[in-house]
Amino acid sequence: MALTMDAAALNRFLASDFPQLPEGLIIDSATPGLLIARLRIGEQHLRPGGTVSGPTMFALADVAAYAAILSQIGPVALAVTTNASIDFMRKPAAGRDLLAECRLLKLGRVLAVADTLIHSDGMPDPVARCSLTYSIPPKRG
Amino acid sequence: MALTMDAAALNRFLASDFPQLPEGLIIDSATPGLLIARLRIGEQHLRPGGTVSGPTMFALADVAAYAAILSQIGPVALAVTTNASIDFMRKPAAGRDLLAECRLLKLGRVLAVADTLIHSDGMPDPVARCSLTYSIPPKRG
Amino acid sequence: MALTMDAAALNRFLASDFPQLPEGLIIDSATPGLLIARLRIGEQHLRPGGTVSGPTMFALADVAAYAAILSQIGPVALAVTTNASIDFMRKPAAGRDLLAECRLLKLGRVLAVADTLIHSDGMPDPVARCSLTYSIPPKRG
Amino acid sequence: MALTMDAAALNRFLASDFPQLPEGLIIDSATPGLLIARLRIGEQHLRPGGTVSGPTMFALADVAAYAAILSQIGPVALAVTTNASIDFMRKPAAGRDLLAECRLLKLGRVLAVADTLIHSDGMPDPVARCSLTYSIPPKRG
Repeated sequence: MALTMDAAALNRFLASDFPQLPEGLIIDSATPGLLIARLRIGEQHLRPGGTVSGPTMFALADVAAYAAILSQIGPVALAVTTNASIDFMRKPAAGRDLLAECRLLKLGRVLAVADTLIHSDGMPDPVARCSLTYSIPPKRG
Repeated sequence: MALTMDAAALNRFLASDFPQLPEGLIIDSATPGLLIARLRIGEQHLRPGGTVSGPTMFALADVAAYAAILSQIGPVALAVTTNASIDFMRKPAAGRDLLAECRLLKLGRVLAVADTLIHSDGMPDPVARCSLTYSIPPKRG
Repeated sequence: MALTMDAAALNRFLASDFPQLPEGLIIDSATPGLLIARLRIGEQHLRPGGTVSGPTMFALADVAAYAAILSQIGPVALAVTTNASIDFMRKPAAGRDLLAECRLLKLGRVLAVADTLIHSDGMPDPVARCSLTYSIPPKRG
Repeated sequence: MALTMDAAALNRFLASDFPQLPEGLIIDSATPGLLIARLRIGEQHLRPGGTVSGPTMFALADVAAYAAILSQIGPVALAVTTNASIDFMRKPAAGRDLLAECRLLKLGRVLAVADTLIHSDGMPDPVARCSLTYSIPPKRG
């Protein structure tokens, strides 16, 4: 797999074409085998107890997978999530950014499958794991 | 299964103890077998094309399952989602509320499993399906 | 949705074209909205303690979903499972058949989504829940 | 995480205490971070076209996760699968063994989460990915 969009190009595309992007989310790096997205944690993400909510982690994994697909096939705004499965395993550490490491396991003609591990910055144990399937529209831009 | 909290009690509890509640989300009805949550659709939920984002639907299913568990066991603020699997099947209809119908398939001592179907108000076909597992803390309030 | 193959036609097709069919599995009934598959429990399905193994329940849900799709679109031998999510909630009752009730939530041009509840014959509580996505090959029939 | 049972001990335990073990399944290696299970492919696993069936791959992932847990906590026969999510991504190569690489993402007091990648021996691309949650009984043997 070759890289079509790098982190800078992905951040520009998400900022301009993806208005529902969670606040504080940026792509840290994109290589052919691994994309890393970062969620800068702010008050708006927190649940009681200082942790990040499940839907916010889901949004992080979803954008990371979308960006990983775009990094390969270019800006296809219409790829849509068809399935996601997420395990929440630990509480995120309070006050630390969340990092999502995403690997594409399959990038087919009509379906892509991505696997994402989320952990608190500087902490090795994963807080969540998410696999997502995206449906890719027939004509790629 | 008997009802411990009705829709009014659930809405009061969510409003006071669940600050990350998505804007516009209310519990429409709660019976021993079925809980219905409603998301009043506003600008903040929309993606390009006028549809609701995946993470917003995930948040709706997550709160519906949480409320269904509370409706049975009472206000246990510490129940946490451990796993969720969601299928996104159709685009929600523009400008219509989303309704989440949630059934508890299991309410055990340590784990609860809920199944949720989401559809646009007035449209029969489901837009999403989500199953969630919650871990229930040992001591119930 | 109209019915293209009834239970008898499905059983004939599975017996002739699906050699990996689990022993004892038959389609009990097929209507446009609901397909019921039955697993006649024998020694070969049992784990220690007399219960049915997880992979056997997975196979039951998988065949039920496949049959529900075929009941609508006819004998398409090449539909393949792309994703499955299963919750195991209770031990099956010893010595009772397992019934899988399957509903198609979506039957699209390229993807179908089915939801299946499995319970022991004569017992109301579900032992497992499984959602499956099937990819349908471009040319039907 | 330290290793309590190695591959030889796991194979002895599975052979004696796990009669529903799929034929041809052995544990190749077990280290604190990675367990590898192998399915020696025979006629009984094949679907039309020479590939392995989905339920057989599910069984392989399920046993790999179970063995990975036992490798850490010792022979606890009563750990049970509560949830599994599997993506089938490619057809297995005909005539090649399947290898399941399993990593424990969480090993808690009551729940364990394992992630498994399955590929055909000698082929880099994964054919399936499976995450499983196991419930661990309160008293460990």
